[in-house]
This record gives sequence, structure tokens and C-alpha cells, in this order.
Amino acid sequence: MMKTHAIIVLFVFLTIPKSHAEDFRQLLISVEKNIRVEEWSLSGSEFPFKTDSSVSIRKDVLHGGKQEGVDVIHVDNGKLRFTMIPTRGMGIYEVVSGDLRLGWNSPVKEIVHPSFINLSSRGGLGWLEGFNEWMVRCGLEWVGHPGEDKFINNVGDEAVMDLTLHGKVANIPASEVEVVIDEEPPHTIRVRGRVDERMFYGPQLELWTEISTTPGSLQLTVTDRLVNEGADDQEFQMLYHTNFGPPLLEKGAEFVAPIREVTPFNEHAAQSIDRAAVYDGPTPGFVEQVYCMELYAGDDDLTQVMLKNASGNRGVSMSFSVEELPFLTQWKNLPALDAGYVTGIEPGTSFPHNRQIEREKGRVPKLKPGESRQFQIAFEVLPDPSSVQKSLEKIKRIQGGKETKVNRKPEE
Amino acid sequence: MMKTHAIIVLFVFLTIPKSHAEDFRQLLISVEKNIRVEEWSLSGSEFPFKTDSSVSIRKDVLHGGKQEGVDVIHVDNGKLRFTMIPTRGMGIYEVVSGDLRLGWNSPVKEIVHPSFINLSSRGGLGWLEGFNEWMVRCGLEWVGHPGEDKFINNVGDEAVMDLTLHGKVANIPASEVEVVIDEEPPHTIRVRGRVDERMFYGPQLELWTEISTTPGSLQLTVTDRLVNEGADDQEFQMLYHTNFGPPLLEKGAEFVAPIREVTPFNEHAAQSIDRAAVYDGPTPGFVEQVYCMELYAGDDDLTQVMLKNASGNRGVSMSFSVEELPFLTQWKNLPALDAGYVTGIEPGTSFPHNRQIEREKGRVPKLKPGESRQFQIAFEVLPDPSSVQKSLEKIKRIQGGKETKVNRKPEE
Amino acid sequence: MMKTHAIIVLFVFLTIPKSHAEDFRQLLISVEKNIRVEEWSLSGSEFPFKTDSSVSIRKDVLHGGKQEGVDVIHVDNGKLRFTMIPTRGMGIYEVVSGDLRLGWNSPVKEIVHPSFINLSSRGGLGWLEGFNEWMVRCGLEWVGHPGEDKFINNVGDEAVMDLTLHGKVANIPASEVEVVIDEEPPHTIRVRGRVDERMFYGPQLELWTEISTTPGSLQLTVTDRLVNEGADDQEFQMLYHTNFGPPLLEKGAEFVAPIREVTPFNEHAAQSIDRAAVYDGPTPGFVEQVYCMELYAGDDDLTQVMLKNASGNRGVSMSFSVEELPFLTQWKNLPALDAGYVTGIEPGTSFPHNRQIEREKGRVPKLKPGESRQFQIAFEVLPDPSSVQKSLEKIKRIQGGKETKVNRKPEE
Repeated sequence: MMKTHAIIVLFVFLTIPKSHAEDFRQLLISVEKNIRVEEWSLSGSEFPFKTDSSVSIRKDVLHGGKQEGVDVIHVDNGKLRFTMIPTRGMGIYEVVSGDLRLGWNSPVKEIVHPSFINLSSRGGLGWLEGFNEWMVRCGLEWVGHPGEDKFINNVGDEAVMDLTLHGKVANIPASEVEVVIDEEPPHTIRVRGRVDERMFYGPQLELWTEISTTPGSLQLTVTDRLVNEGADDQEFQMLYHTNFGPPLLEKGAEFVAPIREVTPFNEHAAQSIDRAAVYDGPTPGFVEQVYCMELYAGDDDLTQVMLKNASGNRGVSMSFSVEELPFLTQWKNLPALDAGYVTGIEPGTSFPHNRQIEREKGRVPKLKPGESRQFQIAFEVLPDPSSVQKSLEKIKRIQGGKETKVNRKPEE
Repeated sequence: MMKTHAIIVLFVFLTIPKSHAEDFRQLLISVEKNIRVEEWSLSGSEFPFKTDSSVSIRKDVLHGGKQEGVDVIHVDNGKLRFTMIPTRGMGIYEVVSGDLRLGWNSPVKEIVHPSFINLSSRGGLGWLEGFNEWMVRCGLEWVGHPGEDKFINNVGDEAVMDLTLHGKVANIPASEVEVVIDEEPPHTIRVRGRVDERMFYGPQLELWTEISTTPGSLQLTVTDRLVNEGADDQEFQMLYHTNFGPPLLEKGAEFVAPIREVTPFNEHAAQSIDRAAVYDGPTPGFVEQVYCMELYAGDDDLTQVMLKNASGNRGVSMSFSVEELPFLTQWKNLPALDAGYVTGIEPGTSFPHNRQIEREKGRVPKLKPGESRQFQIAFEVLPDPSSVQKSLEKIKRIQGGKETKVNRKPEE
Repeated sequence: MMKTHAIIVLFVFLTIPKSHAEDFRQLLISVEKNIRVEEWSLSGSEFPFKTDSSVSIRKDVLHGGKQEGVDVIHVDNGKLRFTMIPTRGMGIYEVVSGDLRLGWNSPVKEIVHPSFINLSSRGGLGWLEGFNEWMVRCGLEWVGHPGEDKFINNVGDEAVMDLTLHGKVANIPASEVEVVIDEEPPHTIRVRGRVDERMFYGPQLELWTEISTTPGSLQLTVTDRLVNEGADDQEFQMLYHTNFGPPLLEKGAEFVAPIREVTPFNEHAAQSIDRAAVYDGPTPGFVEQVYCMELYAGDDDLTQVMLKNASGNRGVSMSFSVEELPFLTQWKNLPALDAGYVTGIEPGTSFPHNRQIEREKGRVPKLKPGESRQFQIAFEVLPDPSSVQKSLEKIKRIQGGKETKVNRKPEE
């Protein structure tokens, strides 16, 4: 526990910028101030600081169908464009760099307003009616599969509730959202949002999200801080469900990671574990395969994973701390293109089994009252063979020739 | 199957008008273009083509209570006025011609926004909290009674889910809505809307609806096309729950149809099957009676049914293809006026038993990837004894003296 | 039953003011007129009648997070300020008089829009995701704990449904809302709202709420009328869940009432029944204690209860008729401050056991078609020792030395 505390302090120092009087700040949504800015934009010429890149930021509201009233924020740093969704828990819909899109083609075509989602429907799979983001957070009370789990109810008794797939946070609108641009070069652009998962006789979790990027860069960093605002110890789970379809995902695409141990999620995945790293093309009738991993990290506890295309000339890397996010789930869902040909690379505080199972395995941590945890993932678009190669070498260095333990059976 | 395909081609030819550059088009809602026109109207003097009738169209938004934010479109063709509800799956709230109203007085007084509906509530009867339309579609994945049915879940396993009454489509807002007025006489007015029932690991069904009418006519035609946009075969169900209260429904009103076979829905309905065609007046404590029918049709596969009032001087007819809609359900709900005195005339692809039962009986069809089905119902207001008589004769011709098989027991 | 009727007539006479042509009226929300006024205010200088107090009324819309789109109405009578929530069943968020706030600090920080609430979630405890009002009505079909109960379904069969905690009315937006100011002195300000709990094959209950206050007074009166608009006898339940945190609630605060009989809600509460009247300070890990009471009343059937702080220099009283509201529930929830340190004083037509239990005990009344019941609670802020003393004496007079029957075991 002490170690965890030390790490929190360290990361706060590293990643939460000092507040400068001269930082640019634009409040977009605020429960506290009773504000919702429907439309706002900052064009390149209005950018408050001098920069070589053509930068723009735009807040908009979506209309029509199930996306009526959804708030979105588009950021273009000159090299990367991405779209955040305050209304859906500060998820990221897609990232585009030139002709490379990070994201996928879900059967869900609209960015669905949470008021149209019933998480309990379809035996607890209602979450799937809104699932089309590049990066969607699962959590905060639970992240995994639906099914029964126990909880303490309003009369203090242990009761049973049906957990729903992947938790609630992706369908909770952000309560406070602002855009910050650092006064200090390189004038990092930060979109911050606070998403609350609170209820009476339940969790009082606040998630402070930040998505940041530097003008002209190919990087995007997610920095979240989860706080237990309650008076009691509080279980939590976090899982960053990051999803890639074409063009990166294709026949021969590969997932690369410094794997310490890998375990198939179920018997079905067990059959294909030797081919887990490599992707097939779209395969009608394909049933999802899920692999649960623990990764090696460098002395700084940082690890890196990569998805690269078949020819190895494009990819994306994800760097994060195995202290913060000790478990990684690889989700392979390779049916026909229209059915959602996609892979999920999902760092988390646990695997996505039902919480009851994860708790048994000791993978459901708690936060004391007032305690917080930080989670940071740095994404980098790898636009050419040399950047792909560099990431490969980095991952190889982290692996350092150490063995990967391959479990051929699911956890019991 | 080949026959079905042939029919599709035929109907596409007959009913989807060629697009003319000079047709009038007004886009009202569009996910694709991020548009929602809150208010718009086209008065008679603004009508783009010359017509003898006084025509008007108006788009509006409802306010207050559970109807806050609901989009409605009112069309007046000079003889018929009707109100469509894009927010509720393009249902039709009512049709009015002079002092004759098609519709009913539901205990539900507002046009309820889907965000206030929980379909799962009350043991799967939540749909009833929004039920007050003249014509509401049931579907697209299922149309019938609540209860368990199997489905394939996200890990490829057969799982069990609770179906909810009458499916989801009536509580899905339309994604694309436009008004089209044909350049060519008789300048038919068409309101088109696309309603999507899509989810990940679920159906990818798109329903293209069209409600059309010709200036000065007493006719209204619903022409829907259901497309499986998914990569796999997809079960579907469609049922047009068309509901009539006073003044047409009254003691002595009659349902007339060329019936090939009729079966009571349950034991309760079985007791009154000999009086199925005739309606009693409002009867406090009345419990619904439902009759399941297959109809005779002409050589063109078209059939016609009619509801007429007691004195036979007013009525409404419905014409449709028994290839498209082979099953018809008659719902008699004749309690006190305030409790919802109403009859439903419901052509469908099946009866409204739970899908599990309908599947066993072979009445749950599938669409192959990319395949579509069209459904068309032509409604005509019969304002006088002669038009009622004409419809009676037509139905008699279709029956052609052929026998009606009356099953005195429910299906087993 | 005759007696009930007589009482209705009496109260209608006493509390529904004659309509005066010269009363000030401002319609704010109306389904009937398709109106929703987003912002409106009446400052003191605009007050239509001469008054010594500085009065203001303001209608506003909340923004951000889960409170997006919530309508609120603030009234300041010069001495009391309070906030009503039309979107949440005309509940009252808080009342403030000087530095005395009636209300509590719920872990739920936003005034949550019903479209974000799923009452069925968490085993039927979804209501708790929006629970933070000073006064929230439970009802109209049921008021108590979740769990199964029977009902009559659409085919006339007795079926089983899962009731959800405290019913639906707190999450139903008002259909008609208006502000009325009496022309006649003392120019009472009345905010009226109609909340409908209606469905097909279900209740057709309309609740006409009125919250009134007189300029310069320390009083607030809730006057509700519940009408069965259905054609059949209709069960109903009403419970006024009125909640107090600090500053009134504190170690040594006391609940005072003329108790005829008190019964612990469960075994846990039974253990502390001798200390039911007195409050402890915030106690981490505290599990709620609930006491079910019947009260003595004066000849006019009116009773009074009071909550006072430890030093007895401040308090609040509630007066109501034991004919209208024969049962009172005291809810003690005394965990850490941040976990929701609060007590509920809850007059009702029953206790908050599951309806199945309350029905067995004969505490679930019915309304005949067209029949109505009125419920009135007069709240008064007691700002000083003398007003507290006066209320104490009144309660003592009502008790009149009569015995309090203390049941040491929960009802069986």
C-alpha cells in the first residue's frame, strides 16, 4: 500500500501540470456553474499561443436518432484529429492521422445518448447498444461480464444484484468539462472532464479524466484520476477498452507485447492460444477470442504494447505503468467486416471476468476514503516502418529475453 | 424463397417512386448531416405544385411532462389530417377526416419520449407506458408477448434473455426523416423515416418507413422496407398494431375479413370465438380477447379487411399482401371507455405469442445479409354507406364463398 | 368510506382556494398547451401585489452531467427560500431560512434527470441514484421496498412483477405547472404541478401537487390531491419522504411526536428502539434504523411532530391529519457525514415494507373510479427556543398523557 501511495505522488508530480494564471481555459460544461456550452470553437488563428501547427478545437452537439443531444469535442493538433464524447463518460470516438484512422466500424452507427441505453436489457448486455468508440472506459464499480454478484443493500444486508456488461461509466455524462491550453511551450492541449459514479448506499467515485496532446505530435495521452469521495472503503475496477479495426487490423496484423504470462479467457480461446498474437482477416461466424495477460515492464514500471499492420509499415503503441494497470486483455473479434471486425487492447486493474470471479482472484482493489489512483496511457501513432521498428525494439528490450508463460487452460 | 425475391422486386417497382430532380424534398432529421429541424411548416400557399386541395405539413416539437422533446409531423391533405411521431419509430398517432377520428383514447395521454420508457419494467410490460398510437409498429427483433427466449450472446453461447412486450422499434427515434412531394401529379406527399434497430452482437436491422397520401384523397399508405444490414442471417418480426376506438368502435361495430382460418389466442378468447367479428359496447371488467387469423387473398395476393360502425355508414379498410403479411391478429379490448376501449387490427409476419412459440410454429422468418422485405398497407377511410358497401363486396369477392375454418381451441 | 368522503369535502373547502379572476397566474409547463417556459422570473419589484416582504420567484433549467435539462423553480418569500423540481415529480430539493437549511448532503450531488435513472437497477434500488431531495414523494402505485408483488397483466392473469424502491412518482416529470399568487392578502404564493402515473393496463393516477407559502412567513404547506382517473378501483400508496441533515440533525437532536404505538421495522432497529427519539452524531458504519409509528391527534384529526437540534434552540415542525396520513416512518441513517447523515420523517398511507406485506396488513387503500384523496402537510421552521418550546407544548397537549405502546419486535 505504501508503494502505491508513493507512485501516486510521483505521477501527480509528473502529469498534473502546475496551474498557470496564463493558461488558456474554456469551461464547456459545469454542473457547479450550471453551464453547458452547446457550440464553441477555437480556430487556428484564434489559438492563444504561437505554434507551428494548424490547431483547432470544436465543441458541438449531435442531432438525429439516438444521438440527439450528445456533446462532442473535436481536437485537431495539426497531425492528429480526435473526437471526445463528454456525454458518454469522456470516451474517445476516433483518432485520425492522415489516412490512418484509429477506431472501428461498429454495427452501432450513432453516438448513442445514455438516455436511450438500458444496461440491464438483453440479459445485462444493453451496453452493446452504444458500443462503437475507439476508447471506452469500463468501470467504475465493475468492468466485466454480466451476472450476479453480491453487494450490501440499504438495510445493511448482503444482497444479490445483476451486474451489467462493462459497468456504467461509459453511459454517464461528464459533470465538469473544460479545455486547457498550457501557456508554456509546447502548449499542450488538455480536455478535462469529471465523470461521477455516485449513488446513495453505493459508490461515491469521481473520475477526473484528461486527454492531452501537443500541437504537431502523433501522441495522445489519457491521464485519469479516480477518487473515492465516500466515507467507506470502496471497491473499484478500471479497464480501458481500446478498439482497433481496419486499416491497422487486417490479415497478418500483429499484437506485440512483453508478455510475462498469458491465459485464455475460456475454452474457446484456449484452442487458438498459439496464434493469439496474429490476426486473421474477416471470418464470417468468428466467435470472440479473449486472452488475459500480465506484462513485463522496465525499471520505471512502464511497459509498452503495439498493434502493427501486416506489412509492418504502420502501427500504434500504448505505454502505461503495470503498477497502475497490471492486467491486459486482448480481445479478438474477427467476423465479417460489417459485423464488427475489431480487436480490443485493454489495460485494466483486472480482467473482464464477472467481478465475483475477479474478487476471488484478488484482482478487485479498494480505495480508502479520500484515496485516489491515477491511470495513464500514452498512445502514439506509428506512421512508418522506422517508428514501428523503434517500438518493436523497445518492447523487445522490456521483454529482455525473459520467458513468456503460456497457460493452455483458462483460469479455474 | 425465390418467390419472395420475385415479390420484392415487383413491389419495389410498384411502390418506390423514381427519384425526380424536381421532386420537393425537405430534410427534417438526419444523423448523417447532423440535422434536427425543430419547427418547419409548409402552408397551402407554399405548396410547391398546383393542387385543388388545401394541403399543409408541419413539423413541431412537443413540450411538458413525458412528451418533452418529442418530434411530430402533421400532414393535412385537404381531406385527411394525420400526425406522425419520428421520435417513436415513425408511428402514427391519429388520422382525422372531418368528424371521424382513427385512433383511440388510451389511458396514456402524452406522446411519451422513449427516454422515459423502461421496456423491462412491470415484468416486461413497460411498452404499455407509451402506448396510445393509432398505428404502432411492433418489431423488429420480436413482436410478441414478454417472457424468456434464447439468443446467442457475446461469447458465442446460447443464452436466455427476457423479451419485452412488442419489441423495441416503437421506442427508437428515427435517424433520417424527410418530406418528399412528387413533382408528378397527383403530387403525392411522402414522409419518410429510417429507424435502426442495431446493436453489437445483435441485429443490424434498418427499417425504411414511408407514409404517403395524395392531396384530396381519403387514403393513406404505409410502405416499409426492412433491410438486414448485418453479415449474418437475422430473424425478424413485424406487426402493425393498428388501433381503433370510437366513433368507429361501438356496440354493433363489425370486423369484416376474408378469413381462411381463425384460432383463439387463449382459452379466454376461445369462449367467445363465435362472436369475434362483432363488438360489444364498453364493458367494465372486460378482459382482452385475441383472435389469430389467416386470410384469403386475390390472385394478386392482396387481401382487404374492414372495420365498420354499427349502422354501416362509416368504416375504414386496410389492404395488404398476404405474402408480405400472412398473419392477422384481431385484438378486442372492450372495457370502460376510460380504460382503453379499443380494437387492434394487426397484420404481421406472425402472431403475437412469445417469439419462442412463434419460432416453433415456423412463423419467425430470417433475412439473409443484405436481404430486404417490403410491407405495404393501404388504409382508406370509408365515409358513407356506399363506400362501406363497396369494401364489403370486395371482401366478399376475395372470400369467394370459400370456407372459414374455425378452431375452437388455442394452438397447442 | 363515508367518513373519508366527508373528510375530502372538508379539506377541499379548507385548502383549495377559490379561483379569483385577479389572481396572478403564470403557466410554466403544459402538455395541454404544448408549453415549456425555460426561464422566467418575477422579482420583488415585479410582484403583482403590495407586500412587506422581499419576494421573488424564478424558473430555471439545470445543465451539465445528469442534471441536463432538469426544470427547477426557486421561491423566496422573504424569510424562506425553497427549490422545487417539476422534472422530478414536484419534489422539493431544499428549504433555506437564514443559516438554517432543511435538506441533507446526499452522496448524489446533481438533481438527476429521470432519463438517467433505471429504477430496476441494483436489484430494484435504482431510485437511490437520484435521491437527494429534502422532500421526495414515494408512490403512487407503491411506496416501499423492492421485491416481488402480484398484479393483473394484459391478458387478465395474475402475474408477478418486481416492485422497485419507493415507486415511480419521483422520477416522473410534471405535465402541468403553474405559479399562482392570490389576489387576496396575504397574497399566498402557490406552485402547482400535476404528475401523472398512467399506463395502459395499469394505474391512471393523477397527483395534483401544490406547494404554498405566504410572504414573510416561516411556513410551507404541501397540499396534494390524488385522483383515480381510471375506470376501475385502484390501489395507491403515498409517503412523504422528508429528510433532514445538519444543522438540525446532530448528536443530541431529537424527534418529538405524540406516539400511540411504535414498532421497529426489523430486528436491527429493534435493538435500539429505546433510543429511537434521540440522534447520535455521525457514526461510520452505521446501518439504517427504521421505526414505524401511529400517532395521536387532536379532535380535528391533526397531529404534529418536530425535529429539534441538541440545544433545543432550532427545529422544524410538521402538522398533518392522521386520517389522511395515518402512518409515520422515522428513518435514522447516521453514518459518516459524507455517506449521507440524515433522518427521514415520513408520513404516509402505509409503512415502507414491500406492498405485498402492507396489503396483508390492510394498509394499502383503494380509490374508486373518479375518487380522490387529499394530503396536506404544513411545515414550519422554528428559529428560536420559544418557537421550539411552543411546538413541544402542542405535541404534549396532543399526547395528553396517553400511553405510547412500544413493540419490541418487528411486525410478523
